[in-house]
Amino acid sequence: MIIKNGGVCSPKGFKAAGAATGIKAGSSKKDMALIVSDVMCNAAAVYTQNKVFGAPITVTRQNIADGKAQAIICNSGNANTCAPGGVELAEKVCEMTGEALNLQATDIVVASTGVIGQKLEIEPFEKGIPLLAGMISAHKGNEAAEAIMTTDTVPKSIAVEFEANGVKCTVGAIAKGSGMINPNMATMLSFITTDAGITSEMLRKALSKDIKTSYNQICVDGDTSTNDMVVLMANGMAGNPVIDGEGEAFDSFCKALNQVTVHIAKCLARDGEGATKLIECNVSGAPDDETARVISKSVITSDLLKVAIFGADANWGRVLCAIGYAQGDFATDNIDVSMSSNVGSVLVCLGSRHNPYSEEEASRILSEEEITINVNMNQGEGGATAWGCDLTYDYVKINGDYRS
Amino acid sequence: MIIKNGGVCSPKGFKAAGAATGIKAGSSKKDMALIVSDVMCNAAAVYTQNKVFGAPITVTRQNIADGKAQAIICNSGNANTCAPGGVELAEKVCEMTGEALNLQATDIVVASTGVIGQKLEIEPFEKGIPLLAGMISAHKGNEAAEAIMTTDTVPKSIAVEFEANGVKCTVGAIAKGSGMINPNMATMLSFITTDAGITSEMLRKALSKDIKTSYNQICVDGDTSTNDMVVLMANGMAGNPVIDGEGEAFDSFCKALNQVTVHIAKCLARDGEGATKLIECNVSGAPDDETARVISKSVITSDLLKVAIFGADANWGRVLCAIGYAQGDFATDNIDVSMSSNVGSVLVCLGSRHNPYSEEEASRILSEEEITINVNMNQGEGGATAWGCDLTYDYVKINGDYRS
Repeated sequence: MIIKNGGVCSPKGFKAAGAATGIKAGSSKKDMALIVSDVMCNAAAVYTQNKVFGAPITVTRQNIADGKAQAIICNSGNANTCAPGGVELAEKVCEMTGEALNLQATDIVVASTGVIGQKLEIEPFEKGIPLLAGMISAHKGNEAAEAIMTTDTVPKSIAVEFEANGVKCTVGAIAKGSGMINPNMATMLSFITTDAGITSEMLRKALSKDIKTSYNQICVDGDTSTNDMVVLMANGMAGNPVIDGEGEAFDSFCKALNQVTVHIAKCLARDGEGATKLIECNVSGAPDDETARVISKSVITSDLLKVAIFGADANWGRVLCAIGYAQGDFATDNIDVSMSSNVGSVLVCLGSRHNPYSEEEASRILSEEEITINVNMNQGEGGATAWGCDLTYDYVKINGDYRS
Repeated sequence: MIIKNGGVCSPKGFKAAGAATGIKAGSSKKDMALIVSDVMCNAAAVYTQNKVFGAPITVTRQNIADGKAQAIICNSGNANTCAPGGVELAEKVCEMTGEALNLQATDIVVASTGVIGQKLEIEPFEKGIPLLAGMISAHKGNEAAEAIMTTDTVPKSIAVEFEANGVKCTVGAIAKGSGMINPNMATMLSFITTDAGITSEMLRKALSKDIKTSYNQICVDGDTSTNDMVVLMANGMAGNPVIDGEGEAFDSFCKALNQVTVHIAKCLARDGEGATKLIECNVSGAPDDETARVISKSVITSDLLKVAIFGADANWGRVLCAIGYAQGDFATDNIDVSMSSNVGSVLVCLGSRHNPYSEEEASRILSEEEITINVNMNQGEGGATAWGCDLTYDYVKINGDYRS
């Protein structure tokens, strides 16, 4: 499976662009992205489960209800959430985008990310939408990735190839993350494109299954955002026989999709606000996969564990503590924990008891930038992985002074 | 109702002491406390709901099953959790305490707090228990409070008087908190004494009701410890008619108990690891009290909100976000939020929308050490309060290097 750099523009027939329109006050940073397919797409989406949600989610949910979409307009710097006239503005943005592209307003996906509670003005869109419509190209996927960033330090983008019934197809994605990251049946903004032919129904099926092992398994700070949104669009331009049911082609598609989303999920965790390290927690031997998912996510969500990893401290007691307060029915009396990185591995806990190890060796291993915590529950066949990041001085700095 | 300073020794017939026995390696800090009643007590306790729990919890649960206890032995510096031979050691400690005090081992409460996963040795107890048994007095409640501290910066202690059937009674308590604080049907270590006469059954009833509005409503870091324990002991030496059912005397007792536990809860939140501010969240207008409790606790648990308060930033969007992901069935379209301290109050959100306010005024208000966030859900009669603290650089510092 080949990894490509074009992101959402790697699949055939997708164009994109990013521009600075002045939403991020006093900044020349890009703040608006447009992604367009040459032809109508089948589409599926998942959204935040937060009961407080942004106006763009209301509008996108309406527009995508028919399983069709052709373009995505997204701004960063302002979430258009708990802000006056939010829904009207989001609808107007879809109208303007439709006009600029000669599409129906109801075929536009609209998304926003940034500060909650401040009015989002129409002027940046009046300037930005025609500008972006004139700029879009198949080489600007990374500009779009850049334009949706808030406190992200790097753009997130990937694409992979797969075969469906012998026809080469591609899945690509961009995403933003960084803070307020604890997706629940959704994630931060992530836009995924494919040139595979596949029905809206099968897209929804693939997406809802996929996020359980990708976006819903990451956590930066335990705060589930009001604006999480993942949109998956398929334009069929690869020319494969349309995937309209289970089978080998659908499995290939799901596998490629999961490669893309897991890659992006890890990028989001690694680039968590203030993070210096990616933490991966693999749980095996759990009663079932769902329990393993809950346990692995509990471990990477623990503030105490996150700070310990920042301090390169193999404090496995905090791992057992976080396992112990995870919801679910499981035994805790025979748990093994090891911690590893690319310079070595150390078994720190055996049978839920201290296993003698060298603190110096552990500290050396935990000083690397990618840390893996392996947990064996020793009671079943269930397994799962979750990704998080360390909690650092910079997280406090970034969020203590985010708006100024 | 009179507030006294004697803590657990304020009620008649209770003695205590604290000493340094060397459990906290390389430190001369007190690490062992003993609390003894002159006569047998009725007793009740609640424990952590973490599925990984310390050996002392196993032993105390056995010893208190008959609703009787007469002394408490507690060490700090080592949690005796996930450590080899933990239960045997805890049982041995009860035996040794019983011998020193001429009591049954099964009438001793044993508790531990500190690092998880390291073997707790018997030697400090061989030295400490006889020492403490010889030192106990009715004037050393505060020494016991000091001896159970880990990263706490101040001892927590209080006592209040109340009347039961015209007889003056007292309830006193000590506690330790600081980190790994997110009690769930229990709390950090808290030992509560009273000279009121009251049956074990009514003690259990009072305690299980009480913690819902006190200890279970605080959060420092979202990590529910493995060693949480609240013990309530009543020796009857005030001479009141024994409280054996509902009624005025029971209500007086519950009210005094709640004064003590809410005071201690606030002390624990204020002294959270690295904290510079106490955050109180009052929720009103919720569908019911339970929903209000969940909402208020969600707000004070949000890392993003905690960091915003550290930065004196009236970022009410984070309050609405934390309300929105709280579990429960409630509307989010008409929420008012104000933030206040002893220098003023500012209404930042009205009807779930931005309410114009001066950022400078808000910053001045939020620069104080006690911050109140008032949330009106505008949909019912339910109300609740929760307490937390800000998340600071020092939290990261303390926990990135806790064991070294």
